[in-house]
Amino acid sequence: MHINGRPYRTIWPTADGTAIEIIDQTLLPHMFQVAMLRTLADAARAIKTMQVRGAPLIGVTAAYGLWLAMRDDASDQALAAAAQHLVAQRPTAVNLHWAVTRMHTALAPLPPGERADAARALAAQMADEDVETNRRIGQHGLGLIETASRRKPAGAPVNILTHCNAGWLATVDYGTALSPIFAAHDAGVPVHVWVDETRPRNQGAALTAFELVSHGVPHTLIADNAGGHLMQQGLVDLCIVGADRVTANGDVCNKIGTYLKALAAHDNHVPFYVAIPRSTVDWEMPTGRDVPIEQRGADEVLFISGRAAGGEVVRVALAPPGTPARNDAFDVTPARLVTGFVTEMGVGAASAEGLRTLFAG
Amino acid sequence: MHINGRPYRTIWPTADGTAIEIIDQTLLPHMFQVAMLRTLADAARAIKTMQVRGAPLIGVTAAYGLWLAMRDDASDQALAAAAQHLVAQRPTAVNLHWAVTRMHTALAPLPPGERADAARALAAQMADEDVETNRRIGQHGLGLIETASRRKPAGAPVNILTHCNAGWLATVDYGTALSPIFAAHDAGVPVHVWVDETRPRNQGAALTAFELVSHGVPHTLIADNAGGHLMQQGLVDLCIVGADRVTANGDVCNKIGTYLKALAAHDNHVPFYVAIPRSTVDWEMPTGRDVPIEQRGADEVLFISGRAAGGEVVRVALAPPGTPARNDAFDVTPARLVTGFVTEMGVGAASAEGLRTLFAG
Repeated sequence: MHINGRPYRTIWPTADGTAIEIIDQTLLPHMFQVAMLRTLADAARAIKTMQVRGAPLIGVTAAYGLWLAMRDDASDQALAAAAQHLVAQRPTAVNLHWAVTRMHTALAPLPPGERADAARALAAQMADEDVETNRRIGQHGLGLIETASRRKPAGAPVNILTHCNAGWLATVDYGTALSPIFAAHDAGVPVHVWVDETRPRNQGAALTAFELVSHGVPHTLIADNAGGHLMQQGLVDLCIVGADRVTANGDVCNKIGTYLKALAAHDNHVPFYVAIPRSTVDWEMPTGRDVPIEQRGADEVLFISGRAAGGEVVRVALAPPGTPARNDAFDVTPARLVTGFVTEMGVGAASAEGLRTLFAG
Repeated sequence: MHINGRPYRTIWPTADGTAIEIIDQTLLPHMFQVAMLRTLADAARAIKTMQVRGAPLIGVTAAYGLWLAMRDDASDQALAAAAQHLVAQRPTAVNLHWAVTRMHTALAPLPPGERADAARALAAQMADEDVETNRRIGQHGLGLIETASRRKPAGAPVNILTHCNAGWLATVDYGTALSPIFAAHDAGVPVHVWVDETRPRNQGAALTAFELVSHGVPHTLIADNAGGHLMQQGLVDLCIVGADRVTANGDVCNKIGTYLKALAAHDNHVPFYVAIPRSTVDWEMPTGRDVPIEQRGADEVLFISGRAAGGEVVRVALAPPGTPARNDAFDVTPARLVTGFVTEMGVGAASAEGLRTLFAG
């Protein structure tokens, strides 16, 4: 994607090949700053402090972290310790565990002298694989947007509502839910995006808005409360969101509030699509009712951070002293409310059979 | 209602009877401060700057403002000018216009020498009428909460979700949606309130939470995104909200986001009640589709104010520069999603017939 007209991934090797660079996402949308990772400790810290976030990007950062570790010490002991250290930064991140295991399995059989170069090559390959997966999600989703566009008056944008950030910043490039939107914009199909603020962590206002303003895609920020009203007014042509996990029956576990938008889409006959790569499907989990929902700290509801008049980022309290808060991070949208999945294999039905058909073989 | 154990209305004459006091609502929830109104100009400013808000409270403030005006100059000319000046502060507030007209109609036939005393008496009567209306809404709603309580294990609280602020602070006392909750709490029926934050203006986090924490009612603040998930989990027994306007067919125009909660309540078989006095029904407006929806400034979405670490109130930006926002203030919840209306006349169906039955005669 583009920032100030220049293409960026979210993670890349420096030009001289001696280090890795990332966008420090903790500073967005208030400051765009590139951070350099030179050591295993740098990579671990970037994962821990959420300078990088989103399952695919965390995995690739860990893979490059193993390269940085192997460059310093490629012994069996160092390899095992580095793998363990990286996984410990966010122990519940399934993709982090998967990426580190894949790297470890490939590196362990090699002579120590070959491990650093092999690690670097495999990390780069994993980054490229993520980019290709998301590019394909974008191409398949583009078809849906083109179909919607043909139903609009000539030149009128397709209005797409999205929730949270399932964009470029959560992946190495393109994103999942935003990939079809970037594809449409780049192909000259007029699009306009309704960006849900996504309280309490405001990933919509902070990250999705940043991506769209940076790449030049027309968009409008709205309160999470507004989507249903916009659908009633005929101002939403389709919804596209991402998912943290899709269960075997097609239920969608995604950022809190997704379910409310899916209800409104259903009530107003607006198509509601969920964009996911194959790795998001949890085949072992029968339905969304079985998914444990993470509860996060109350402070994310009671406080918010933003850019004060002087440019500095300030955290302010929103509620009176003595008021407690509850903070469920995700909700489950039943498959019955989902029009379809947009995947790297194509578009398919939100059902056990639909998922099997998409990903069979 | 109680603040620090002491009962308060939102507006009252001073002990010596020479002025009016109000709670300065622009400072809530970060500071509790009483402001004194000594002149017509003070009352007009309190309305204009939203130190007082909520249709009933605005009306009563204007009524007392006419008393303050008559005390200075009770001529026909001064009466007409004061009435005009007050209405001009918030020209679209129907209740403000109604209250000023009622005062003017009563005062104009009187000799100037009697107008000040008559104005004061009528303003006090209008305040008392509002309190009595809301008290009766509370008693009728209490019955619903008691019924829900009997279905819970002994001692378990009835979990009630509310949106925005339809509380004591929007009226002279008790509120509308919160009146049944205060009534239940005071009657010893255990209740717990899920308080929607209510972006973008955060009336839930700021005002409803302040009322509940002040009066000692158990409550928990949640992001607007969370209510559907809580209902799926069986953690909401009923919803009670207020309304800005109810149309003749029972559609409900209320704070943006109400529709999404009503959809979730319907999907999860949670009763969804709307608490209103008779004056909220707009008999001339056939359906909710006919209600014009106010669009407010984008800055309410792009910025938020809160209490910084030092205690001062700071306004911060949430989105990147260049991101526009849209801010629809209200949405329409179709009558089909409303379980019933809670009114000063009793509880009735959300339909043209239900409204006629409640308010006939």
